[in-house]
Amino acid sequence: MKILFVGDVVGSPGRDMVSEYLPKLKAKYRPQFTIINGENAAGGKGITEKIYRGFLEKGANVITLGNHTWDNREIFEFIDEAKYMIRPANFPDGTPGKGLIFININGVEIAVINLQGRTFLPPLDDPFRKADELINTAKAKTNIIFVDFHAEATSEKQAMGWYLDGRVSAVVGTHTHVQTADNRILPKGTAYITDVGMTGPYDGILGMDREVVLKRFLSSLPVRFEVPKTGRNQLSACLIDIDQKTGISKRIDTILINEDHPFMMD
Amino acid sequence: MKILFVGDVVGSPGRDMVSEYLPKLKAKYRPQFTIINGENAAGGKGITEKIYRGFLEKGANVITLGNHTWDNREIFEFIDEAKYMIRPANFPDGTPGKGLIFININGVEIAVINLQGRTFLPPLDDPFRKADELINTAKAKTNIIFVDFHAEATSEKQAMGWYLDGRVSAVVGTHTHVQTADNRILPKGTAYITDVGMTGPYDGILGMDREVVLKRFLSSLPVRFEVPKTGRNQLSACLIDIDQKTGISKRIDTILINEDHPFMMD
Amino acid sequence: MKILFVGDVVGSPGRDMVSEYLPKLKAKYRPQFTIINGENAAGGKGITEKIYRGFLEKGANVITLGNHTWDNREIFEFIDEAKYMIRPANFPDGTPGKGLIFININGVEIAVINLQGRTFLPPLDDPFRKADELINTAKAKTNIIFVDFHAEATSEKQAMGWYLDGRVSAVVGTHTHVQTADNRILPKGTAYITDVGMTGPYDGILGMDREVVLKRFLSSLPVRFEVPKTGRNQLSACLIDIDQKTGISKRIDTILINEDHPFMMD
Amino acid sequence: MKILFVGDVVGSPGRDMVSEYLPKLKAKYRPQFTIINGENAAGGKGITEKIYRGFLEKGANVITLGNHTWDNREIFEFIDEAKYMIRPANFPDGTPGKGLIFININGVEIAVINLQGRTFLPPLDDPFRKADELINTAKAKTNIIFVDFHAEATSEKQAMGWYLDGRVSAVVGTHTHVQTADNRILPKGTAYITDVGMTGPYDGILGMDREVVLKRFLSSLPVRFEVPKTGRNQLSACLIDIDQKTGISKRIDTILINEDHPFMMD
Ligand SMILES: [Fe+2]
Ligand SMILES: [Fe+2]
Ligand SMILES: [Fe+2]
Ligand SMILES: [Fe+2]
Ligand SMILES: [Fe+2]
Ligand SMILES: [Fe+2]
Ligand SMILES: [Fe+2]
Ligand SMILES: [Fe+2]
Repeated sequence: MKILFVGDVVGSPGRDMVSEYLPKLKAKYRPQFTIINGENAAGGKGITEKIYRGFLEKGANVITLGNHTWDNREIFEFIDEAKYMIRPANFPDGTPGKGLIFININGVEIAVINLQGRTFLPPLDDPFRKADELINTAKAKTNIIFVDFHAEATSEKQAMGWYLDGRVSAVVGTHTHVQTADNRILPKGTAYITDVGMTGPYDGILGMDREVVLKRFLSSLPVRFEVPKTGRNQLSACLIDIDQKTGISKRIDTILINEDHPFMMD
Repeated sequence: MKILFVGDVVGSPGRDMVSEYLPKLKAKYRPQFTIINGENAAGGKGITEKIYRGFLEKGANVITLGNHTWDNREIFEFIDEAKYMIRPANFPDGTPGKGLIFININGVEIAVINLQGRTFLPPLDDPFRKADELINTAKAKTNIIFVDFHAEATSEKQAMGWYLDGRVSAVVGTHTHVQTADNRILPKGTAYITDVGMTGPYDGILGMDREVVLKRFLSSLPVRFEVPKTGRNQLSACLIDIDQKTGISKRIDTILINEDHPFMMD
Repeated sequence: MKILFVGDVVGSPGRDMVSEYLPKLKAKYRPQFTIINGENAAGGKGITEKIYRGFLEKGANVITLGNHTWDNREIFEFIDEAKYMIRPANFPDGTPGKGLIFININGVEIAVINLQGRTFLPPLDDPFRKADELINTAKAKTNIIFVDFHAEATSEKQAMGWYLDGRVSAVVGTHTHVQTADNRILPKGTAYITDVGMTGPYDGILGMDREVVLKRFLSSLPVRFEVPKTGRNQLSACLIDIDQKTGISKRIDTILINEDHPFMMD
Repeated sequence: MKILFVGDVVGSPGRDMVSEYLPKLKAKYRPQFTIINGENAAGGKGITEKIYRGFLEKGANVITLGNHTWDNREIFEFIDEAKYMIRPANFPDGTPGKGLIFININGVEIAVINLQGRTFLPPLDDPFRKADELINTAKAKTNIIFVDFHAEATSEKQAMGWYLDGRVSAVVGTHTHVQTADNRILPKGTAYITDVGMTGPYDGILGMDREVVLKRFLSSLPVRFEVPKTGRNQLSACLIDIDQKTGISKRIDTILINEDHPFMMD
């Protein structure tokens, strides 16, 4: 059972990369299941219903989100109907949407969980205890449990990886928009990576116009972050190979497509 | 002109990895110049004179530091005499030590600069303006300028990379203890990586005992972070190839040595 | 029913002020109930069993704490037996100690709750939902409910005051060590003040040696905060007058004793 | 020489309070000089030219600002011409506007300085060193130097007070929107208060609609903060009496006008 996960898709450059390369990645790696983090898909901030549906049409099975979930206010209108979209589960009780989803692919049940960190991010419910609770629920149905842990601090992400080692198939980090090189199988069989990285502009800063971000750092004045409309793009992803019976992961490989790392079919 | 940079060395496990692999890395890659980030070298917190001298004996030309510079109070006794050690240059005027150093290797002058970020870290002087100032000073003597930017946020690190592109040979990030996969040559010739990663325990959290760090996240109680004394270790580094005349970088490659990525001589 | 609350007692200067003025305040105001915030009572960091018992002997009925609860590790040895001491209730399940206490004074049941904010402070469980839960429990026994909300941000503290207005007798803020002038009865009868202020050195910074704190701000170097051993002191407190039947507060008055505001018996 | 300082004016409720009470306060206390902090004057966020001119017409001599300086983008159009308005001086070089102003009132020169803290606020230049620099400049012209230190943390504000004691006439804090009760003359003659407090809605949270702020704390969802249009208001201010020759302060008194503390002419 192979799962393809595409990291934070930023604006139309990111969506274009998904359109162009998701079919090729599917042809090359033949994943049974595809997840896309879409928290920045709408102009860098949040997601719209049209974009959500577009991701499904392009071949995603589940869309995960993060701290930017609510940035585009359209979310409040369609989140209840967006069956295949999850947001961080540790938002407080009563938050629209859900943070755990089960999908059945050819008779195989897969649970996907989205959680958000609290270090250098706003306070939410404890993601570790929420993980315990959701894994309990998920285990009743399946051993294949995939966790997108959307967090800033490398310490909190590694902590989650070790905390869940042996209990879930994968803990992949998102949010920093930079792919890390620490993909590994932890001792008890959980696939782990601190951050899958960003899908979008290759020559921006985290996918946003670099002049604007630099102005922010140099002046401390407010700026309006923008996704550059032209220029080179990249796609960041990872591929996880899971034993279907046990839910234990066998491999986790990173995928990085940009002008310095061109896609090759073999 | 090849420069080898070894990322945050944590405690005796990190120092052991330097002892074991620095000779091998030198034999394999033949760098003319070696830099080690030593901010966590003494039990995870700061550095001692003995450790500093040990790094030089093992073949380092310059030791850089970071936010943990002052954690071992012995630093205040030897920093003035530690000719080959630099700390973040944007600590306020009057801070012991220095943040820019020139080293002459076989007639080639190399400038090394250490800076610290301010996002999710304590307030210091502006690292961008301090970079401008120090690069001005350095340019009078050499085109080969190496910057260790010790910072937490991926945005601030990428911003520094783009800000200095074409003005320095390399901007390498440290501090997050996780190697990133975004090593690249920016359009104007600066080698860049968001984080070189950590040298020390492979099965800890950022190199610290994982049970202790997990206890911290799960309980919010104070804990005493410790470097595990036994277990598997890793070394994280990068190798940068610089045109000696222009200071423009040709390549930046990452090095990761652990049980999943064993060292190979060729 | 009058409740006297003494704000964060810092070190021996603070304890001396309690020894000297608590009898006088009791003689002057005749409170039926006295609460002391003791999170900084042991040298500025935490509390010891001896100090805890000393507070009870001096006439306190309940000791509240805050983010410094665990700074003196002796706490772990006596917190389970310290019947009259509470720590912030929204530490995660399994934390030693308790955050709600009932005391019966001459047949009148009083509930005291300690909560900690999350803005500019480490992540804990949601203090608002925890307040709901504990107030539910408390209401079964009494209408007289006193809340010490230990928090940094004025917004979070005012939010708690308004959130609990009409449901508890008082929400008094602690932690910033500076008494505020916004003591008032909210429209539905809850007494509120953003911060009661600090009991300890009058010429320090938040009760700590001002030269040391200034060195910290000027140098960004680590320092060891210390409580000054000599010099002028102050006591900060407030007095709340509560209708015994309804739990509704009639008055909240601040008390500030220092050389600029000398204590007067009438 | 008496200086009246009015704390953070929030939206039209705050401006209405200034219109109504500034004439009365002037009649009662006869200050020679009036300063208003206007960072929240335009709907809670920033200031417009019309509002700025309105403050001058109502009798202000100088308008100070803070972290919300740039929230209303109209500021960039008129800040260069706004002779009597200052923003925090420790924004980086090149920032529009200025942070030090001299005003001559009947032959007496008065310097007003605006600074912003860095604890729990974005990184700026060091406010302590910037204070040194500006006081040096100011001392060449006058001993009467007034500092509005716009900062969050009580520690940083008290540190600034002690740091400047004897060098300036007054250090008054702004930004937390809650008046503190620690107004005092420091040993070397500087008038000090941690926060002057807010001028605007009395029943909001920091002057903003309390339902909206509560929703934010309870849901962690984004909200649009709004200044309530109806309801009770307050005015927060302080009055400082300075020896005109030496610049040493003799008194600092707080002023709080709301339904619980009605204004009285004598
Ligand atoms: Fe993102
Ligand atoms: Fe994010
Ligand atoms: Fe480090
Ligand atoms: Fe560091
Ligand atoms: Fe305290
Ligand atoms: Fe505290
Ligand atoms: Fe304000
Ligand atoms: Fe402010």
